[in-house]
Amino acid sequence: MKAKKEIKTEKVSKQKELGLTADKDDFTEWFTQLMIKADLADYTDVSGCIIFKPSSYAMWEKIKSETDKRFKKLGVKNCSFPMLIPEKYLTKEKEHVKGFAPQVAWVTEAGESKLSERLAIRPTSETIMYPSYSKWIRSWRDLPLKLNQWNSVIRWEFAHPVPFFRTREFLWNELHTVLATEKDALQEGEDILEAYDDVGTNEMALYGLVGKKTEKEKFAGAISSTKIHYILPNGRIIEGPCFHYDGQNFSKAYDIKFLNENGKEQYGFQCTYAITTRMLGTMFAMHSDEKGLIIPPKMAPNKIVIIPILFDDSKEKVLKKAGEIAKDLEKFDAFVDSRENYKPGFKFNEWELKGIPLRIEIGPRDLDKGIVVIARRDTSEKKEVKIKDINKFVEKALEEMQNSLLEKSKKLFKSKIEKTSSFDELKKLIENKKVGIVPMCKNVECEDKLKAETKGAKAVFISEDKIKNEKCIICKKKAEYFVYCGKVY
Amino acid sequence: MKAKKEIKTEKVSKQKELGLTADKDDFTEWFTQLMIKADLADYTDVSGCIIFKPSSYAMWEKIKSETDKRFKKLGVKNCSFPMLIPEKYLTKEKEHVKGFAPQVAWVTEAGESKLSERLAIRPTSETIMYPSYSKWIRSWRDLPLKLNQWNSVIRWEFAHPVPFFRTREFLWNELHTVLATEKDALQEGEDILEAYDDVGTNEMALYGLVGKKTEKEKFAGAISSTKIHYILPNGRIIEGPCFHYDGQNFSKAYDIKFLNENGKEQYGFQCTYAITTRMLGTMFAMHSDEKGLIIPPKMAPNKIVIIPILFDDSKEKVLKKAGEIAKDLEKFDAFVDSRENYKPGFKFNEWELKGIPLRIEIGPRDLDKGIVVIARRDTSEKKEVKIKDINKFVEKALEEMQNSLLEKSKKLFKSKIEKTSSFDELKKLIENKKVGIVPMCKNVECEDKLKAETKGAKAVFISEDKIKNEKCIICKKKAEYFVYCGKVY
Repeated sequence: MKAKKEIKTEKVSKQKELGLTADKDDFTEWFTQLMIKADLADYTDVSGCIIFKPSSYAMWEKIKSETDKRFKKLGVKNCSFPMLIPEKYLTKEKEHVKGFAPQVAWVTEAGESKLSERLAIRPTSETIMYPSYSKWIRSWRDLPLKLNQWNSVIRWEFAHPVPFFRTREFLWNELHTVLATEKDALQEGEDILEAYDDVGTNEMALYGLVGKKTEKEKFAGAISSTKIHYILPNGRIIEGPCFHYDGQNFSKAYDIKFLNENGKEQYGFQCTYAITTRMLGTMFAMHSDEKGLIIPPKMAPNKIVIIPILFDDSKEKVLKKAGEIAKDLEKFDAFVDSRENYKPGFKFNEWELKGIPLRIEIGPRDLDKGIVVIARRDTSEKKEVKIKDINKFVEKALEEMQNSLLEKSKKLFKSKIEKTSSFDELKKLIENKKVGIVPMCKNVECEDKLKAETKGAKAVFISEDKIKNEKCIICKKKAEYFVYCGKVY
Repeated sequence: MKAKKEIKTEKVSKQKELGLTADKDDFTEWFTQLMIKADLADYTDVSGCIIFKPSSYAMWEKIKSETDKRFKKLGVKNCSFPMLIPEKYLTKEKEHVKGFAPQVAWVTEAGESKLSERLAIRPTSETIMYPSYSKWIRSWRDLPLKLNQWNSVIRWEFAHPVPFFRTREFLWNELHTVLATEKDALQEGEDILEAYDDVGTNEMALYGLVGKKTEKEKFAGAISSTKIHYILPNGRIIEGPCFHYDGQNFSKAYDIKFLNENGKEQYGFQCTYAITTRMLGTMFAMHSDEKGLIIPPKMAPNKIVIIPILFDDSKEKVLKKAGEIAKDLEKFDAFVDSRENYKPGFKFNEWELKGIPLRIEIGPRDLDKGIVVIARRDTSEKKEVKIKDINKFVEKALEEMQNSLLEKSKKLFKSKIEKTSSFDELKKLIENKKVGIVPMCKNVECEDKLKAETKGAKAVFISEDKIKNEKCIICKKKAEYFVYCGKVY
């Protein structure tokens, strides 16, 4: 094209090396490349722990602030408890400790001294928070108590770590509440799940389905666990934000009692909620493609990059206009990539790789015509836009992109699920990277058998569909519910 | 007064028990009571670690957001590194490990397994971040690199813990930067300290003095350390936000090199910065009094409490008006304390204890007159204000309170310092809860002797005052500088 007098650039032939070389179908390789090359995260020598680099961390901060905003309306307050938990605290609720003990990282020494009691790094904070709850709560007037922490926890999983999806340290919120009645607790559960789902749907463009876990899969110490589930293009189910209803299990173990309005002593009803950095992985994996990262505009730290096409004789003029446009688009955190040692094509690729939702190209000829070219990251669609119309155009384009990604995620979900009553068909579905909805009884052995014969798929959550005269897909006895079966991360 | 038909309240005689019973002169007891009774923090069974309860944590969040705002302008980006550090990483910079090893909490077991290498819980993150810096930085174009974390660290101090001031786990930011030249590094140091000081001065109403540490007191591994210092009413110096200039000490140990603009390989220049939850303690201790917490309005999560004076026959009317006023004062997070089982006097005391900057009292007679009574927490001043003028009045009152607290803190600082060349006088100053400015040589032994003979006071930071023919207060040899000497937390 108009490259005759283009400013000399350093020899840059990194293009290929910079971009992704794997197909999205080759999910693990593709995702690993995406994580590193889009500058989202990096490994360290601490096995199973990753670095959240500024761009992914900025998106985590967005998840935090959006969740906090919704939590605040529901009366949740943030606080901070110690990260270390004395062993004797951890072991008070028996099911809970059984679930977590195999994954606990233990502090046994400090400086030159051996500690008299081992301290766990929190795998979750019930056991350090509830002794204080027991002390603080006296009367029904102290309820509801809704304390939340944004922190990181360590669970020393021995399964293969996958960045964002399964890491030994991850970031999350943990909200632990006490209510006076079961009814209040279950209502709160609905409200908080709705808040999480709102963040997932309307900020992260992720279509998810709320579903209760089976007895086998519920949280250690809970009466029931309910999560929001997503399905990735590779057919894996992702367990997203969760609500564990603990009833009085912990309040009895940790002596969380209050005098009710009739002056009678009573144990509190408790709930636990979390959203984790796994949501980042879900969002990256859901929307991105072979060119790199695609993220919903609402989540993007910078929504627009402006790339000036620079020639010796018009450089100044073009840069000046680019700067003006950036200023005009300040509320979208627009920025100009004015580096002279890279060609425009290289820059296009780099910012596509890194997932900036909109790219504005502006060269001297465009300037003469009073236009720019705007390209959308998700569709690669390019449009000429009059300079005076840019603001209106990008506002609309960003909104359309946000909606379109959600729509795509919803379609994908629907396309991935299929009902069947045949175990053979279920196996085929799973081989084809799909999720089956199948009738099952409540027998844990059937779940075990399902897992064994499908190379690791499991009954992930219970469908709300009514069941009538169906038979369990495994034992052929009376089925109790439909369950979503598939592989999970 | 008008209490004849006051609504019956539950018998509440907790007044005394609720309020502080210690004088501020009895600092430790007063501060401990303040912390617990104003609902700021609580102890746990994890020795030396405290719970940051919602009110103090909300103020910490304010410090974070105000600091972040200023950091962002200086090109700082937030991120998250693992909290665990392999022992071999920790030991690369010799001075650094010497300083921190005695305080490290070590993870040695995970689940049922013994780890092959001990992992430190970060006491600070240089040693986990810098191996990545070494990998990421290639050319001068990658500089400056300015990565920040908001997290918590563990330093297993064996000295007596004091809530907020000295705890084994504390919350902080740690900003670690790499720059191409020493000049850039030192300029950045000034800019970041200015940002911290701006948060301290203009948000927290704390007057502080920037000062460099002596060789003995500088950070382990640094070339120089500079901190902002505050002086509490009890004469203790508080070391606030800090800047450690590391020169090339760490970049050499961790191999952080870059090709400069001339194509020559060169080690980076590094800086480290932090602000901690100790600032909360400083703020609480500085401004509060025997009635409880006083906090600068800008830091208060709720700036106004509205207390309706309730009588059977006018209750509805008064509550309605109180609600309207609260709504009108929404931007100050005003709220109505409409509890019927507590008398107004009890509520006055409770919110004074908890440090709400302004209290609005409204009763039926006030309503008839179209006025309310507004009381300021710091001065106890009460004023009748026309209902239509409330908004304007509180805006001004909050601003005045903010300024007045800063002014008070500045006056206190000035009143606490005194210059002397006599060691005996210095001892007297310290006994009288003051801080001496004294001439000293640079000899570490003189600092040791100073500490030994003053029951723990030390040379805390170097004055910028020029020194001429003064002699060291200890050894009587030529003095090199004036230093601020006092006790610290």
